[in-house]
Amino acid sequence: MTAPLKLYTAATPNGFKISIFLEFLGLKYDVQKINLRTNEQKEDWFVKLNPNGRIPTLTDSNTGVTISQTAAILQYLADTYDKDHKFSYKFGSVEYYKQLEYLIYSVAEQGPITGQLSHFTRAAPEKIPYALERYGTDVKRILGVLDEIINRNKDNGLYFVGTHYSIVDFSVFGWARSAGNLGIDLDQWTYLGKWFKELSEAPEVKKGIEILQ
Amino acid sequence: MTAPLKLYTAATPNGFKISIFLEFLGLKYDVQKINLRTNEQKEDWFVKLNPNGRIPTLTDSNTGVTISQTAAILQYLADTYDKDHKFSYKFGSVEYYKQLEYLIYSVAEQGPITGQLSHFTRAAPEKIPYALERYGTDVKRILGVLDEIINRNKDNGLYFVGTHYSIVDFSVFGWARSAGNLGIDLDQWTYLGKWFKELSEAPEVKKGIEILQ
Repeated sequence: MTAPLKLYTAATPNGFKISIFLEFLGLKYDVQKINLRTNEQKEDWFVKLNPNGRIPTLTDSNTGVTISQTAAILQYLADTYDKDHKFSYKFGSVEYYKQLEYLIYSVAEQGPITGQLSHFTRAAPEKIPYALERYGTDVKRILGVLDEIINRNKDNGLYFVGTHYSIVDFSVFGWARSAGNLGIDLDQWTYLGKWFKELSEAPEVKKGIEILQ
Repeated sequence: MTAPLKLYTAATPNGFKISIFLEFLGLKYDVQKINLRTNEQKEDWFVKLNPNGRIPTLTDSNTGVTISQTAAILQYLADTYDKDHKFSYKFGSVEYYKQLEYLIYSVAEQGPITGQLSHFTRAAPEKIPYALERYGTDVKRILGVLDEIINRNKDNGLYFVGTHYSIVDFSVFGWARSAGNLGIDLDQWTYLGKWFKELSEAPEVKKGIEILQ
């Protein structure tokens, strides 16, 4: 019997990735919503869990693990609760390292750069054309790379790696959705647009988003 | 007998991380320097290896793996060539997930944000005070978080995880060095400053940097 996991999170692109994956895994989890407007994530009790003071953070009383950083949480959940590899690939396999490469791509480039575009579009107190151009161009380049990754794998289906959805798809989804919300039409990329539409319609995705609202 | 690895790289913060780790591992590797000034990393032959068109990329004829993204390369090398866990922690252990969390922190926050500071300080054609302030402040916050991570582990020594250097230390080193080169005095953080000085003096670090010059 697995005790429910505890997820400290909020309705953000990174937050959605984890709740979506937990829905696919069918695991029980308790959500504690963190109020980003009052900077609850910088309070002492939370910084003890995550020195970086950002959501999402997961604690698992079954293993004693406390973990932050979206990609690390996804990989931890796959290692621990996806032993049949329905949403991940076997440790050490060629697919495992493709999964790791693209998982990290999604958090090391797609996430930070789309995050900057979002900031300069919505949050910055002044419009800075240079920054909007810089990040707008790079987000489109990155979405093009993601399209090409699906293209290279398309004989297996519309997935980033192998023959089924994996933690890469859930990780890419969070900020791809945000790019759409920032006015970038994902359908300009043949494979990425179709991939996004299909994954968006999965009940697990809808529930993973809804639970954080 | 292990065939030499092939490393496509350049003298950048991300490039250094891999050559430094390869030096610590004592592995044979052939370096192919990629000319970033002529955008060699965007040429067709290279994009076949890495759809993102960025260095570093590693190919390993011993396993058939081709891999990009600095954190993925570091983890791959640890899994494959550090079976005694001299510079990494055992798959599935509590330390392994701390290692994964901080490894990802280094590539998902430290790297991208320091990269933006570097761009707006050195490469952007105009000085944009808002961007310089935004990234300057966040780089210092991140370096403070890294200092706190070492602080929490200091009873074990000046390491990010456990009782020895690991792929986290090599990953953090690349952009910590850059922050220093951008005029940020790392000694303002007690533990991070000492950690940086000690690691900088390791012969493997010096050789890993020198080999890319």
